[in-house]
Amino acid sequence: MTRQEIIHQIKKKKSFLSIGLDTDINKIPKHLLKYKDPVLEFNKLIIDATSDLCISYKINTAFYESRGLKGWESLVNTFNYLPKDTFSIADAKRGDIGNTSAMYAEAFFNPKSSEMDFDSITVAPYMGKDSVKPFLDFKDKWVILLALTSNEGAKDFQFMANDDAYLFEMVIKKSQEWANPNNLMYVVGATRGEAFLDIRKIAPDHFLLVPGVGAQGGSLADVCKYGLNKDCGLIVNSSRAIIYASNGEDFANAAREEAKKVQIEMANELKAIHF
Amino acid sequence: MTRQEIIHQIKKKKSFLSIGLDTDINKIPKHLLKYKDPVLEFNKLIIDATSDLCISYKINTAFYESRGLKGWESLVNTFNYLPKDTFSIADAKRGDIGNTSAMYAEAFFNPKSSEMDFDSITVAPYMGKDSVKPFLDFKDKWVILLALTSNEGAKDFQFMANDDAYLFEMVIKKSQEWANPNNLMYVVGATRGEAFLDIRKIAPDHFLLVPGVGAQGGSLADVCKYGLNKDCGLIVNSSRAIIYASNGEDFANAAREEAKKVQIEMANELKAIHF
Repeated sequence: MTRQEIIHQIKKKKSFLSIGLDTDINKIPKHLLKYKDPVLEFNKLIIDATSDLCISYKINTAFYESRGLKGWESLVNTFNYLPKDTFSIADAKRGDIGNTSAMYAEAFFNPKSSEMDFDSITVAPYMGKDSVKPFLDFKDKWVILLALTSNEGAKDFQFMANDDAYLFEMVIKKSQEWANPNNLMYVVGATRGEAFLDIRKIAPDHFLLVPGVGAQGGSLADVCKYGLNKDCGLIVNSSRAIIYASNGEDFANAAREEAKKVQIEMANELKAIHF
Repeated sequence: MTRQEIIHQIKKKKSFLSIGLDTDINKIPKHLLKYKDPVLEFNKLIIDATSDLCISYKINTAFYESRGLKGWESLVNTFNYLPKDTFSIADAKRGDIGNTSAMYAEAFFNPKSSEMDFDSITVAPYMGKDSVKPFLDFKDKWVILLALTSNEGAKDFQFMANDDAYLFEMVIKKSQEWANPNNLMYVVGATRGEAFLDIRKIAPDHFLLVPGVGAQGGSLADVCKYGLNKDCGLIVNSSRAIIYASNGEDFANAAREEAKKVQIEMANELKAIHF
């Protein structure tokens, strides 16, 4: 999916919401357990109930891998159920030496190999350029590079500083030598509202994928205040707060209501910047 | 597998070799393609031919994920074929926020969930403590944390320096607050021989997993000179140079011959330190 198509979806839906399918078989409503693939069934009903309110689905691969072969089957089938006009994110945090990252790219970007054809993948920057490059060789695909994450552990290394910058700023600066705002986004946690101001100085045009709104406690208003740019430039993800809004038979409807609340807030933010 | 068991295997086999099963279906001998699962067949024959010469097998998950569901099936079946007295490494480079890393731990450490029960997993440090901790909650399992990798891109961020240390040294120092030499190893690339001297100053007791001997050009002699400690302290991995030693029908035998050469060199190194 191209940058223009993403922007078009944001305008059309008045939303920059991504819904995270962190689907845990132990947390989904019990009445779904009678299905052959309860996780897939849950995901389908969540997607059906929310796809007009969000522009993206983020699939957290860990929740599928944890169930082994059955989980990987749920992953492939969930991917193939995603509406083609939503931006699909393989939230996989991969990254390895060049020949190995090339294999991960096959796994998530080449349907002839893997039956999956995500628009984007999250990548960990620690191993540098040749760990990122193989993903960029695919046309109209995106790398979403970890920059400043939403968790407590972000403080351990991401704020290491030399005379010029913090590590997360180095990641943002250096990676712009490899890619551009049409094929590279950054992960910036919503729990770090004020940091968006500094990040926009070094990445004014890039889209930022923002986890941490909802269960992790980040503020959408702060993220918008400091993070919005002329093309919106934000994809804000919520996972648990939406998909687990209820664990009864009304779960899909409850998810829709939560997503709707966020979408309305987003529509107001977009209106305020005349987007 | 405990540290004592690893040391016992090294003494018994006079080897600290790990063989990397980076099995690419496009690179294995053509006569294997008639089998239902050619990758599994290849791996079984490589394992049968080499298991008395190595103490560990490292499965690079990318090469399996790249083939989608079929690949994940090869992964599970290959894992279950590994001899129980070898140290199994899921070379997966995972790492995410706490609740997600917990899911990755289920994927590789909990056979009830995933049918796999690796002894260890490689983990990327970028997201800090809570991304690493969930793997450490499993008894007798190991985290192998990326420190100084073997690839060109290692220079991009791992050598970032503040007044005290390089980033890779910070990773080694900080992570020792979370774990100890009985459940934590570090990845240090064989292509960086001289760096082992400095690393041994801050991690004298830890085992180091050393990729990059063989196809990537690292020197085993240099690695041993600077990296061996009183418990050996090294697991040196070779993948392509061994498993693709021949692409004919003699491939398993050729792999054995290559592994034997390395094992003899290792036996000499161990003898020299009276291990």
